[in-house]
Amino acid sequence: MNTRQLTELAQQLRVDSIRASTAAGSGHPTSSMSAAELMAVLLARHLRYDFDRPQHPGNDRFVLSKGHASPLLYSAYKAAGAISETELMTYRKHGSRLEGHPTPRRLPWVETATGSLGQGLPVGVGIALAEKRLDRTGYRVWVLCGDSELAEGSVWEAAEHASYEHLDNLVAIVDVNRLGQRGPTRHGHDLDAYARRFAAFGWHTIEIDGHDVDAVDRAYGEAESTRAQPTVILARTLKGKGVESVQDREGLHGKPLKDPDEGIAELGGVRDIRVEVPGPPAARMLHAVRTGHLELPRYEIGEEVATRNAYGQALAALGTARGDIVALDGEVSDSTRAEFFAKEHPERFFECYIAEQQMVAAAVGIAARGWLPYASTFAAFLTRAHDFIRMASVSGSGINLVGSHAGVAIGQDGPSQMGLEDLATLRAVHGSTVLYPCDANQTAKLVGAMAGLDGIRYLRTSRGETPVIYSPTEEFEIGGSKVLRASDSDRLTVVAAGVTVHEALKAAEALDGEGIQVRVIDLYSVKPVDHRTLREAAERTGCLLTVEDHHEEGGLGDAVLGAFLDGRPVPRLVRLAVRTMPGSATPEEQLHGAGIDAESIAAAGRLLVEHAIVR
Amino acid sequence: MNTRQLTELAQQLRVDSIRASTAAGSGHPTSSMSAAELMAVLLARHLRYDFDRPQHPGNDRFVLSKGHASPLLYSAYKAAGAISETELMTYRKHGSRLEGHPTPRRLPWVETATGSLGQGLPVGVGIALAEKRLDRTGYRVWVLCGDSELAEGSVWEAAEHASYEHLDNLVAIVDVNRLGQRGPTRHGHDLDAYARRFAAFGWHTIEIDGHDVDAVDRAYGEAESTRAQPTVILARTLKGKGVESVQDREGLHGKPLKDPDEGIAELGGVRDIRVEVPGPPAARMLHAVRTGHLELPRYEIGEEVATRNAYGQALAALGTARGDIVALDGEVSDSTRAEFFAKEHPERFFECYIAEQQMVAAAVGIAARGWLPYASTFAAFLTRAHDFIRMASVSGSGINLVGSHAGVAIGQDGPSQMGLEDLATLRAVHGSTVLYPCDANQTAKLVGAMAGLDGIRYLRTSRGETPVIYSPTEEFEIGGSKVLRASDSDRLTVVAAGVTVHEALKAAEALDGEGIQVRVIDLYSVKPVDHRTLREAAERTGCLLTVEDHHEEGGLGDAVLGAFLDGRPVPRLVRLAVRTMPGSATPEEQLHGAGIDAESIAAAGRLLVEHAIVR
Repeated sequence: MNTRQLTELAQQLRVDSIRASTAAGSGHPTSSMSAAELMAVLLARHLRYDFDRPQHPGNDRFVLSKGHASPLLYSAYKAAGAISETELMTYRKHGSRLEGHPTPRRLPWVETATGSLGQGLPVGVGIALAEKRLDRTGYRVWVLCGDSELAEGSVWEAAEHASYEHLDNLVAIVDVNRLGQRGPTRHGHDLDAYARRFAAFGWHTIEIDGHDVDAVDRAYGEAESTRAQPTVILARTLKGKGVESVQDREGLHGKPLKDPDEGIAELGGVRDIRVEVPGPPAARMLHAVRTGHLELPRYEIGEEVATRNAYGQALAALGTARGDIVALDGEVSDSTRAEFFAKEHPERFFECYIAEQQMVAAAVGIAARGWLPYASTFAAFLTRAHDFIRMASVSGSGINLVGSHAGVAIGQDGPSQMGLEDLATLRAVHGSTVLYPCDANQTAKLVGAMAGLDGIRYLRTSRGETPVIYSPTEEFEIGGSKVLRASDSDRLTVVAAGVTVHEALKAAEALDGEGIQVRVIDLYSVKPVDHRTLREAAERTGCLLTVEDHHEEGGLGDAVLGAFLDGRPVPRLVRLAVRTMPGSATPEEQLHGAGIDAESIAAAGRLLVEHAIVR
Repeated sequence: MNTRQLTELAQQLRVDSIRASTAAGSGHPTSSMSAAELMAVLLARHLRYDFDRPQHPGNDRFVLSKGHASPLLYSAYKAAGAISETELMTYRKHGSRLEGHPTPRRLPWVETATGSLGQGLPVGVGIALAEKRLDRTGYRVWVLCGDSELAEGSVWEAAEHASYEHLDNLVAIVDVNRLGQRGPTRHGHDLDAYARRFAAFGWHTIEIDGHDVDAVDRAYGEAESTRAQPTVILARTLKGKGVESVQDREGLHGKPLKDPDEGIAELGGVRDIRVEVPGPPAARMLHAVRTGHLELPRYEIGEEVATRNAYGQALAALGTARGDIVALDGEVSDSTRAEFFAKEHPERFFECYIAEQQMVAAAVGIAARGWLPYASTFAAFLTRAHDFIRMASVSGSGINLVGSHAGVAIGQDGPSQMGLEDLATLRAVHGSTVLYPCDANQTAKLVGAMAGLDGIRYLRTSRGETPVIYSPTEEFEIGGSKVLRASDSDRLTVVAAGVTVHEALKAAEALDGEGIQVRVIDLYSVKPVDHRTLREAAERTGCLLTVEDHHEEGGLGDAVLGAFLDGRPVPRLVRLAVRTMPGSATPEEQLHGAGIDAESIAAAGRLLVEHAIVR
């Protein structure tokens, strides 16, 4: 395509963006119009992509970080012949694949869900990393960003990560249209302001007029030939470009044109240009991934082992058995024990430094390319990446997250380091799995099982050593539980997980000595939860006492309730959880102070049973 | 103090850091030792602070962003005479004020809880903003950062915010000791790498040898005389400086010295130098804050008003009545309606652009200076700031958070924009209050009530219009609820909040027409929850059906359970919530698709009652 044709294609993308958003009655035509040339030139001249085979290992990857400009993306799909005119007109309608913000759940050409700003570039870095260090099939990652979203710190975590890893296969294109949702951005059309920042972070920078197709073409070419560093193209554009009534004007963000026909006429009317997007070179092949027999670590019953240690050892073993396993960590691998994997499989370990958003984003990007990531940090610090986890779920991304140092049981370090809301956060993620093992063999088995699940999988590990109570041959079903003590004369069931399992067992032993029989359930699968076993225990013992090293909201106790929402009678429920703000203290003092140690469980059990509060 | 005395003081801080962490058996002496000169010179020569009157409006403010270096902070407190030698030796022990990471809950001289890295500078920006735009008492904010934490994107959100607001009263001191927890940082001792980044973000930069007390002194002086931009001092230091066996060595992060006596001897032994820290100038006075009568907006019953509109209008009114109210927004004030406040009180409105972490951090900093912030963005995007909210709770900070565009009810924009986990997230925050109004008058009253609460207060607002059902004179207790329909023949209670209240009322009307009487409770106070009313409804009707525009975990349904954990019988509970991943559709289609509209509620109610599942 020559200059004139590229310009025409850009106009078509504008017109189609207007038409789609007009048909929908909502959407973002003006944010689409600013980037029309940027998209047209990419599609026609630089992107190597086989729309019929979106999973082709050699395909370039395109990420629309400014996800609200979806009309532009869908108009480009139409121009490339991937979707029809009819489908384009279903934009934002019930049942349409063309959602307000693109997601890979619906569309095979979308790499990651966007719409929460500042996430496309971080995930793009993950994809580029996968190419550079794992796939090595030569594809390039193109990310179209808005200027507003450069205010997100996650963008600068990504910028740092990309330059440190010399990702010259990554191109960030910034549509600097100067206007955010509410009004002008901080830097307006000051391209230099952005260029200084990216250059300082080690990027190659190019500043252009984003409406000049030849300049855009040259910039893309320069990016393609830049070595050893990522490139950012800062393109000066106008929001709503080409239609006088909306061009470069405030107050029109996210609004269809008032007079679309006039706008379309001003842009030269409807066109039907079809772009032949060149496919990837045939030679680009994905190398086969090795799989072998999984030899998980085995621990002796009675041995004292921290579950975080078992995590690291099991992950290293899993990495040996399967070549598609990768690990990421947020500069705490000596604490999370991801270091065991890093030592055995350095080529598949990604150090993300103290940048949890980028760690999760990189995992999402790597997973998008078919690898299976395990990303770890302290459970408390996964909260930093909550929005990325949420969006990973919107993507339908299959990633494993591991949060260590759960609960008050960590001891002296105090509340800033304690994961006390992670069960609530991760349970509330759509389609997630939440696991909380209490011993080393169980941890190892669950690390293996996580690999076979869909969606977001979360494993909660503990800092301190706990006794091994399960044999290495014991199996742990996802959605299951283990009844650790049971008799026909049980008068109460204690439901625990992780560190509180051991406290519950001690409490049950003590109560047994007083003639009070107590059932103990290890609810290692917090989501999904074992309805059957909980219901049976409730019917046999009448009352469930849940005990968790977590805040009282949204954790184990609430998960147990989930087993009793079928309209049948609900057992009496009593919950022990962390209700106060802990300070520094020994692990034992912390568990006692929070009222979740053996003594507290026994006291609560005694009260419930002896004072006939239950039965 | 002269050079020799400053050097001696620095050695004392090192020795005391070793002694405190040795007594504790844990802690971070090496991370403290690298910054000893930085702290000594600040304390003795530059900080203006009255330790006897920590709330003095003219005091400078010091934030230890690298919170794990708490031994250094506490040693400085000892040197300043604020704590005793005896108290210093209680470090990290049960009941001590000297926690592993400092918090203002325990210590009056701590501005904000740290320990989650990359948060001290963002909060420091908030405090500096409060000085610049609200207090104007001339104090300076000093933030001591680690080098590792500069990998956090939040630091760059803060950097952008500080330079944009010309915060020349802010000094970031970076202890570049080259070693993180696990090993070397990305940039090691390359001070230029950091300087380039900060300079690009608009900061004045100074590079020094952090162990040269004269250089440190000159740098602080240069920072004090720099105008119109914030200053960062990049100090080259050695971790564990001064003790050969630990100095500049890997693998010693967070570990007390193996041979403390030898280390102390190497540092010249124990000293007892007392520093006279100069107080603030007497002339610095806080100007009085105006308070007047609150005239909340009033809405007519039957009027259609979005609760987000009522939020904006009520906040503007609150701002008129009270001079201490400030508002912050993440570049979506036209959506959250914080714009109404911004228009009426521009001097107290803080535009934070698309940087939610920084928005919450700024709120925490502003609140630390006695102002009352309301910070708003889409509920979905508050997830971005989850770790900051968590740490605000550790601080005991009193801030108001407002999340708009809750639930699937937003319609076409799709899941990336829908707050569907915010109730779970915010409920799990220690000491939080969670409110979810269903009409405009209720919203207005709750906006006013929030101002009088402690801790983190969260208000969830809706995008679409809903009918006003309450009179402007109705009162809404925090921890209360409203029974909207009740009769002696109720066979079921529907518990709803926000948008589902209106669906529940429609469903109850429909069921009433079929001869099924249903009680409806508006549970606007999701936390704390109204035990009494829920218990009474349960006893009268036997079954509670909860319905919420939120994922099924951790939200309204779990909150209702919280009313039944006293060991007494639990009613049958059935929950309607969002269980699928929504796409784009109209609000009505979304509510129906999620099974939380009137029709779905009626169907569930009918099933429960007619099929005798209840009663």
